[in-house]
Amino acid sequence: MSWSSYLSAHRDRFISEHLAFDRIPSISSLPQHKDDVRAAAAWAVRRMQQAGLANAGILETEGHPCAYAEWLGAPGAPTLLFYGHFDVQPVDPVSLWTTPPFEPTIRDGRIYARGATDDKAGVLSLIQAIESVLVSEGRLPVNVKLLFEGEEEIGSPNLRALLAARKAQLACDHIISVDGGQWSEKDGGILVSLKGLCGLQINVHGAATDLHSGVFGGAVANPLAALAHILAALRDPDGRVLVDGFYDDVVPLTPAERAAMAEVPFDGDELRDRVKVSALAGEKGYTPIERMWARPTLDVNGMWGGFQGAGVKTVLPGEAHAKITCRLVANQDPQKIIERIIAHVRRVTPPGVRVDFEPSKGTAYPYSMPLDHPVNEAIKRTLTQVYGKPPYYIRMGGSVPVTGQFERELGSKVATLAFGLDDEQMHAPDEFWRLSSLDKALKAYALFLHETF
Amino acid sequence: MSWSSYLSAHRDRFISEHLAFDRIPSISSLPQHKDDVRAAAAWAVRRMQQAGLANAGILETEGHPCAYAEWLGAPGAPTLLFYGHFDVQPVDPVSLWTTPPFEPTIRDGRIYARGATDDKAGVLSLIQAIESVLVSEGRLPVNVKLLFEGEEEIGSPNLRALLAARKAQLACDHIISVDGGQWSEKDGGILVSLKGLCGLQINVHGAATDLHSGVFGGAVANPLAALAHILAALRDPDGRVLVDGFYDDVVPLTPAERAAMAEVPFDGDELRDRVKVSALAGEKGYTPIERMWARPTLDVNGMWGGFQGAGVKTVLPGEAHAKITCRLVANQDPQKIIERIIAHVRRVTPPGVRVDFEPSKGTAYPYSMPLDHPVNEAIKRTLTQVYGKPPYYIRMGGSVPVTGQFERELGSKVATLAFGLDDEQMHAPDEFWRLSSLDKALKAYALFLHETF
Repeated sequence: MSWSSYLSAHRDRFISEHLAFDRIPSISSLPQHKDDVRAAAAWAVRRMQQAGLANAGILETEGHPCAYAEWLGAPGAPTLLFYGHFDVQPVDPVSLWTTPPFEPTIRDGRIYARGATDDKAGVLSLIQAIESVLVSEGRLPVNVKLLFEGEEEIGSPNLRALLAARKAQLACDHIISVDGGQWSEKDGGILVSLKGLCGLQINVHGAATDLHSGVFGGAVANPLAALAHILAALRDPDGRVLVDGFYDDVVPLTPAERAAMAEVPFDGDELRDRVKVSALAGEKGYTPIERMWARPTLDVNGMWGGFQGAGVKTVLPGEAHAKITCRLVANQDPQKIIERIIAHVRRVTPPGVRVDFEPSKGTAYPYSMPLDHPVNEAIKRTLTQVYGKPPYYIRMGGSVPVTGQFERELGSKVATLAFGLDDEQMHAPDEFWRLSSLDKALKAYALFLHETF
Repeated sequence: MSWSSYLSAHRDRFISEHLAFDRIPSISSLPQHKDDVRAAAAWAVRRMQQAGLANAGILETEGHPCAYAEWLGAPGAPTLLFYGHFDVQPVDPVSLWTTPPFEPTIRDGRIYARGATDDKAGVLSLIQAIESVLVSEGRLPVNVKLLFEGEEEIGSPNLRALLAARKAQLACDHIISVDGGQWSEKDGGILVSLKGLCGLQINVHGAATDLHSGVFGGAVANPLAALAHILAALRDPDGRVLVDGFYDDVVPLTPAERAAMAEVPFDGDELRDRVKVSALAGEKGYTPIERMWARPTLDVNGMWGGFQGAGVKTVLPGEAHAKITCRLVANQDPQKIIERIIAHVRRVTPPGVRVDFEPSKGTAYPYSMPLDHPVNEAIKRTLTQVYGKPPYYIRMGGSVPVTGQFERELGSKVATLAFGLDDEQMHAPDEFWRLSSLDKALKAYALFLHETF
């Protein structure tokens, strides 16, 4: 039986396995899901053993563990290190999910579940494709090492230490991430750039307790109003970042880069209608795709303070909080950006309140890869077979913090071969993955294992 | 036995009754406490019957009910209508209470409980004083009507209709509120001005669902950042309100009024240290006491949107919310101020989001009373006996929305005789009332019933 026939024969089982994997609530950012993240790691380890991979096991870190396995039976052939993650984003507001986030459901040819596309899709499809080749051919054409982590959604704070400590075990010729996407259902894409990431929580403190707004309003500062002034001083109403020095290290887009982005068949009206806003918005002087792919951004991810219940509470609150993340482009440094934000906030904080900061541990450098890298060439051949035409070169506004860490510790660029699409509600309610993408992923990974590098 | 001896003989019982009354979680703003508000009304009705008052009963409204009773056995003597409220503020954050808000506890001569000072103190002390005079003297020197409501903390949305419908039943010569306070433990105060109140919730809507900040950031507006811009456009960093036309109807303070306020022994440093801020803050050009007592304010009472959990969620949220209330002074109109805020917000809303509004039902007109009103003269004599020296004329930044409603429906000004102090954590965790204030209140109400008007 060819690997292709094996894929067809086992398709139903493969789908069931995705549902089972997605059922594990492996939310890495919430302490109460610590055991679930470990359960997802253990699930991946068992599945890799079943696929015929060797040395499958948990690799411990200071935080959530990794899952690892390998097949090294092709002496002389290149060794490919595949990377992905089995942790997922939180699910609130749960009320907006059509079906519960951890009760995976198939509707209209799509698997709905938290993690369905980001990134259990990539992790499990790769394992299934490897099994198909191993079983049908008795061997793989290349050596493979599979490393899946449980902290990608919190910025991979412990992966670099693991890479540094296991350089020999993880030595490889090329690194391929299975966390990413294609351009559309019909068009392939080769990812050549990712944004960096940094973030922090800003805490604004006023009076030691909540106070009566009638008695004390006018004499005691309002931390919520102060926070509003602080946040308004971080971005202008269009979204251009006002933090002093924020754009200092940004490498300006070249005319050629802007031309390449203009070639991609991006439809701003379609995006506008899909997310149901009256108009797209963002920094003046750039097209939407430039802003999404190649301009740094600052977003408020969460904000809270005071009374949030029904009705009225005439309170002068004692504190206010906001969570902020920035997406960065070459050559911005996440640490430097955090420092500049903190300095800026200190300068613009109104009188009568004090501020403190909780920088996020997980940060990512922006990342880019040469279009003509040998692995990109192999990916191009693979995708051309799967889609029947050559792929676009695409960029992502998302961050995969490990790309920079892999390059620094293992000395290789990280290419991406993955099958998410950007309408799949990643990080949002009703996340899903298409079964048609599963079929493409299985075929593509199996083909890719037969590529030359 | 004189009423004075009766007060002493029954002091322990009276204290126990305060604890029992405070135990009822009569939070008027939270639907799940609807039955508790009614239970507090029923409790007050029973207590008024026990005190010897007649026609005690529940008066229904469209919302929470009122409690009513009367004693009309002094033909020819004036009729005094007393007003107070048995509903209380919400209690969150509950974690900041030393003892649970509805498990009243006496520590250091203070009753700690939600509602202990605002306003179950006033309601019950008055009933206890009336009982003391009625029992010890067999009659009251004046006629009294007691009307206590259950919606003061949500702006008394249904009281005016009740007053209008029961004009004959509530007819009186003078109206006295038992909701208010004194200047200090040692200094009496006559309340001559209250602020008005209005408020609204602002909802900012962006994309139909939460989105991935990496994929969509830069192209889709961020409702939290938009809300920050809106709120920052409502007040300057010092707290001066920026809403177009907000100050148009404000009657400027006269030099005489500013001088009277300067005479009050207000200690700004003490307030600063008490609420634990580095400095008082507020509108430039006015002293703290002027800002608290006689200048209008706009406060953000609550604000929320996006991810509020531990850790990081790189989300571009779909919506953001803020609750705002304004404290008003003569001659601002609450309805007009709400309209001006809404118009202002529409003008300053950044592109890519839409806003809608939920004005609060409960509003209050600002209120003031002549210093030499006959009831104020009677209160002055009463307080001079209780404190051993004449009281100050004071103002309150708080609002008692009914004052204006009483004046309009029943044709009388509303004087205030009440014994709260402004360090008693009204509307905040660890609300308390002093037993020393209970003793003063009981004596003062008994004396006041013997006054001439």
